[in-house]
Amino acid sequence: MSLGRLHIVGVGPGDPELLTVKAARVIGHACVVAFFSRHGRVGHARTIADQFISSTAQELRFVYPFTTERSVNDPSYHEDMSDFYDDCAEKIRHEVHKGQNVVLLCEGDPFLYGSAMYIFDRLHISIECEIVPGITAMSGCWSEASLPITHGDDVLCVLPATMEEDDLADWLCRADAAVIMKLGRNMPKLRKALERAGRLDKALYVERGTQHNSKVMRLVDVEGNVPYFSLVLLSGRQNIR
Amino acid sequence: MSLGRLHIVGVGPGDPELLTVKAARVIGHACVVAFFSRHGRVGHARTIADQFISSTAQELRFVYPFTTERSVNDPSYHEDMSDFYDDCAEKIRHEVHKGQNVVLLCEGDPFLYGSAMYIFDRLHISIECEIVPGITAMSGCWSEASLPITHGDDVLCVLPATMEEDDLADWLCRADAAVIMKLGRNMPKLRKALERAGRLDKALYVERGTQHNSKVMRLVDVEGNVPYFSLVLLSGRQNIR
Ligand SMILES: C[S@@+](CC[C@H](N)C(=O)[O-])C[C@H]1O[C@@H](n2cnc3c(N)ncnc32)[C@H](O)[C@@H]1O
Ligand SMILES: C[S@@+](CC[C@H](N)C(=O)[O-])C[C@H]1O[C@@H](n2cnc3c(N)ncnc32)[C@H](O)[C@@H]1O
Repeated sequence: MSLGRLHIVGVGPGDPELLTVKAARVIGHACVVAFFSRHGRVGHARTIADQFISSTAQELRFVYPFTTERSVNDPSYHEDMSDFYDDCAEKIRHEVHKGQNVVLLCEGDPFLYGSAMYIFDRLHISIECEIVPGITAMSGCWSEASLPITHGDDVLCVLPATMEEDDLADWLCRADAAVIMKLGRNMPKLRKALERAGRLDKALYVERGTQHNSKVMRLVDVEGNVPYFSLVLLSGRQNIR
Repeated sequence: MSLGRLHIVGVGPGDPELLTVKAARVIGHACVVAFFSRHGRVGHARTIADQFISSTAQELRFVYPFTTERSVNDPSYHEDMSDFYDDCAEKIRHEVHKGQNVVLLCEGDPFLYGSAMYIFDRLHISIECEIVPGITAMSGCWSEASLPITHGDDVLCVLPATMEEDDLADWLCRADAAVIMKLGRNMPKLRKALERAGRLDKALYVERGTQHNSKVMRLVDVEGNVPYFSLVLLSGRQNIR
């Protein structure tokens, strides 16, 4: 019996029309469609890809054992997540060994901070994996905000807001253009770091970019908590010529 | 008479299937399709989008007055390019004022070092512009190379190889993950900077990523000159969990 294969497919930041033609084709032909979701939710990537999934496809839903309830600094976090990813990888391997073509859906681009990488890391030696790139959240957001991000020889830094305030401030001083992701509870720290770097005024905030309820505003005008799907943009030196 | 509008559309790094569903739709409906090309060439973005362009569309071909023949450090470079972009912008404005829907095609994502930004900068105040994001060259390349680029809180730096060797080496020391673009005649300098940062061994080279004649190899194995469509990838800390 011949083996199936695994496609790890980026579905973009939210608008279903921002899937690629290739992603639409590969998803449509999959026997098994796998995706991550939070407890009690449909799964964001699953929602985006909905119209492209064949009605006969089997679905593998991987529910995260926890998300924001446990801190990344809790030693049990990584152990339990690692067990979870082991388990997901085995379920996919099982289907591929039965000869099924499996698609693992991933928000944005799979290899830019995507959970799918933890599955890829576990399987790529033993089964055939192909990666289909996706529109990243940052491209979706700077396009929606009509903010050209890098001109000429600008350097772009992509920064997770999970790092220490001093490090964030340091990166924000050096970078020409910057994208800051993973905001959530890191917002007060990020504001301080932007202030220290003298860049708070110019920072643009994008929430649920390319989705129907998206928002684009100056970061200084954002009040209260921010949702998971949000990021901050700083454009580069913008030397118009 | 009502005005038309301008869509600036990313067509991805080379594989026509890596256009988004939205890009395919918007290109298909355009009355006027504009694109840049080098002298004597068809234009890379035009080639990628070929199958999606309506047979009745009018084409506006903008031929760069020069490319690598003149150095960026030559004072006339920026002046003459600026005149060229002024002229392209006026041609687009003219069509939009006639009520035409114009699409300007752009390789990869329009707002990541795209020439289309120079047109956007000139027109966005006076005419309606919508940006359709595209798969970036870097996403296409790390997907094709099966190289997860950033895990956890890795910082990703996107670096144009046009900067000074000292600056390049400095960025390469600090960055967790890095993408180096615009290689061309900067290769010897980039090699030295990677060596100084102790990262030459791990650097991956991707040429014409996602195109039919693409190549993925270790940078240390690359000999001779490299084509315009090539970049270098360094993945982050890769802490598999
Ligand atoms: C785990 S990362 C995944 C990134 C994704 N793989 C990509 O290519 O963009 C999740 C982060 O992406 C950002 N994000 C994802 N979708 C977004 C959207 N539609 N609007 C704004 N930010 C988004 C948020 O900063 C969020 O914390
Ligand atoms: C002016 S920049 C345009 C970048 C584009 N807007 C994007 O989103 O990737 C041109 C550079 O992109 C890179 N590039 C574009 N297409 C590529 C491909 N198919 N393979 C490798 N590198 C590519 C090369 O480094 C080239 O010097």
